[in-house]
Amino acid sequence: MHEALEFLKTHERRALEELVEFVGIPSVSTDPAHAGDVRRASEWVAARLRRAGPIHVDTWETSRHPAVFGRWDGAPGAPTVLVYGHCDVQPADPIEAWHSPPFTLTERNGRLYGRGVSDDKASMLIPILAAEACFANGRRPPVNLRFLFEAEEEIGSPSMPGLVRAHRDDLACDVALSADGGMWRADRPSLNLSSRGIVALEFTVYGPAKDLHSGRHGGGVANPLHAAAALVASLHDADGRIAVDGFYENVDPIEPAADAALSRLSFDEAAYLKAVGAPATFGEPGFGTLARQWHRPTIEVNGLYGGYQGPGSKTVLPSEAHVKITCRLVSRQKPSEVADRVRAHLERHCPAGVTLTIDIDEGHGAEPYRVPADNRYIRAASETLTEVFGTPPDLVGMGGSVPIVTTFRDTLEVDTVFFSFSVADEDIHAPNEFYRPDRFRLGPRAWVKLWERIAEGF
Amino acid sequence: MHEALEFLKTHERRALEELVEFVGIPSVSTDPAHAGDVRRASEWVAARLRRAGPIHVDTWETSRHPAVFGRWDGAPGAPTVLVYGHCDVQPADPIEAWHSPPFTLTERNGRLYGRGVSDDKASMLIPILAAEACFANGRRPPVNLRFLFEAEEEIGSPSMPGLVRAHRDDLACDVALSADGGMWRADRPSLNLSSRGIVALEFTVYGPAKDLHSGRHGGGVANPLHAAAALVASLHDADGRIAVDGFYENVDPIEPAADAALSRLSFDEAAYLKAVGAPATFGEPGFGTLARQWHRPTIEVNGLYGGYQGPGSKTVLPSEAHVKITCRLVSRQKPSEVADRVRAHLERHCPAGVTLTIDIDEGHGAEPYRVPADNRYIRAASETLTEVFGTPPDLVGMGGSVPIVTTFRDTLEVDTVFFSFSVADEDIHAPNEFYRPDRFRLGPRAWVKLWERIAEGF
Repeated sequence: MHEALEFLKTHERRALEELVEFVGIPSVSTDPAHAGDVRRASEWVAARLRRAGPIHVDTWETSRHPAVFGRWDGAPGAPTVLVYGHCDVQPADPIEAWHSPPFTLTERNGRLYGRGVSDDKASMLIPILAAEACFANGRRPPVNLRFLFEAEEEIGSPSMPGLVRAHRDDLACDVALSADGGMWRADRPSLNLSSRGIVALEFTVYGPAKDLHSGRHGGGVANPLHAAAALVASLHDADGRIAVDGFYENVDPIEPAADAALSRLSFDEAAYLKAVGAPATFGEPGFGTLARQWHRPTIEVNGLYGGYQGPGSKTVLPSEAHVKITCRLVSRQKPSEVADRVRAHLERHCPAGVTLTIDIDEGHGAEPYRVPADNRYIRAASETLTEVFGTPPDLVGMGGSVPIVTTFRDTLEVDTVFFSFSVADEDIHAPNEFYRPDRFRLGPRAWVKLWERIAEGF
Repeated sequence: MHEALEFLKTHERRALEELVEFVGIPSVSTDPAHAGDVRRASEWVAARLRRAGPIHVDTWETSRHPAVFGRWDGAPGAPTVLVYGHCDVQPADPIEAWHSPPFTLTERNGRLYGRGVSDDKASMLIPILAAEACFANGRRPPVNLRFLFEAEEEIGSPSMPGLVRAHRDDLACDVALSADGGMWRADRPSLNLSSRGIVALEFTVYGPAKDLHSGRHGGGVANPLHAAAALVASLHDADGRIAVDGFYENVDPIEPAADAALSRLSFDEAAYLKAVGAPATFGEPGFGTLARQWHRPTIEVNGLYGGYQGPGSKTVLPSEAHVKITCRLVSRQKPSEVADRVRAHLERHCPAGVTLTIDIDEGHGAEPYRVPADNRYIRAASETLTEVFGTPPDLVGMGGSVPIVTTFRDTLEVDTVFFSFSVADEDIHAPNEFYRPDRFRLGPRAWVKLWERIAEGF
């Protein structure tokens, strides 16, 4: 049989011990107090990558946390794949909600609990284990390899666009394979073919120069909270369709392939509602819940506040109201174009008696991303998952935004295949994050097979 | 000449020294740390009242801060007047914004600065000085006197309704004269003929059971902030008229007398806008700014909040949205009836996909109050002010709510005349609260004259 798979099987226990070690480093990138731990995690990754085989490993410093780069060019004529992942994690707060110490990987009820195990430590360790298995006993991986493991993903990957541009030649490849991402369901494999774009903006409605007594002044001047509410209400019509002029202009109908993929999925709406605890699904008429989450744009108010928030009542006519918004984008929507349309809408609909300022967060934009189902690397991934899981993967979308994929697309001119063995239900960013041990065993085998398929098909 | 007025003139300096002493007691009723100071202020008032003449003085304990009661019945056949005021004050925060220590009465630019000097210490000391002047040299006041000085006004007078009911016989009188209130303008006298009622409610819109990622779930379930904004927006039509079914049902047209009073006032809208710093006036069409503030009802959102409020953006689809509302009432509107109408409106207009709870704050209700301009005591007050200021008072309304006047009306069956020498611009509840020394001199003379007029006209 396959020597690499053999190697993986005999080294499963060691792999798990390494995962314990890796999760044990509290590499919380958002917390300056953990900056040293984040560096330790990067060093751990660099050392582990060196141990995996004759890979040239570098540390790329940034103004925050270092990224680890690896390169192996021993398969002339074969394609080059770029493996992406991240070794930083979310904070563990609220600590008291954890049933075991967050930075002590703990097996319980057939699950591995620990902060960052699903997002993204186990999933990014997997391709390193796969590479090692390919190198074992003097053999060689079937493809040329690039590795890029950053340590700033949980703070929005601020250094990535610049780093990728600066190291464009080092990173040149035929396809990017992301170990970050995650499958849609625990009981079936899935492949993600799209992510939505995003643009963030906030607006402030100003009324009087200071908070006024709502008895003395109420009825005399406009209340900024009324105006802000009217503006927010004006963004959608009553049944949930976006009412901003031209918002849907660059939104294409859902592609037949994506539509067909949706219709093949079994989505249990009642189970979904139970999981999120909402009384009903709701959104743009004419589309199912998954279509709305993956393939249709949204305007979502993330925060709205003004006036008194304490207990009881306070008779204030507040001076200001604040609204934070993010839009999710699809098809050919561009962050700046959509932001401009929303801005124009807000300015046109601003009620009398108040003034309005709008700030567009230029740093928080990402374009929508989509890779066709017949993309050769998607096909290779699909065949691999079919072989490994014994069932073809669901073809799914991602409602969230993944700026790194558009960075790879725009700078390296390659598509990205999400090939992660995390599952969306593993409580990432929440207490009691976990990973499934069978997926930690399965993952490296799948990566080996994927590289082989990519090499064959080339 | 008039001996009482003579006495006041020769004791002006001492009166000012007493005001310094009174303001020096930091009787902040809302802060438990100052409970002892509040008691000291009450004791100071009781002692001062005893010194003013042969007045029977009692302290009425409550579950919070004591009230001071005074009684003198030496004018048989003459009417009995109840003098109301309060000796507690607002907190001094933000202390750093004060130009002199808040509890050290400081004369500067012809003004007396100190916390509580306008609301209500100088204005409530005035009738005590007036009574003393009437008693001086063995003379007697022309009317029977009751005094009620509470120490809980700044926390909403929670003990007052019960205290007034329990001491109904002690407080029995022909009219209440409030030393709390304040005139509309500094350059002219005014008499207030009405106050608006109030009812408070809050509602919460519930969506998912926990905050969701707005990328993954946005478009799938309803956003409680969108629903809350739609509900708030539904309360008014675009030009500011209240859109709640039946809200205006018990609102009468502005009475001809009130309308005539409004048309006699010179209101400088530009100066008002400058003072409050608002870009424009705004409200129910068909009414002027003062009419809207004094004689028309409002629905005012005092607080609205949900989701993320920190810097930058956070992609959250929040679980809840909160809205705090107070309505100001006029004419025959009742707090509970109006609250029920708003509740019915919210329930009827609640968007799909969310649930709604509504809490009506039964403790925070007050009925509207109005005293006719031809009321005999108003007439007496008007004539007195005309004599003292050399010009007839403006007849004005009060946009705020004064629960004590409906307590007096309902329990003692008397009207209340606001006879305060504070002015609305004296930064009460704000840093650098002040009083006008000429009004502190004028006030006691006016009270003596008012009592005389009331006795004559009886």
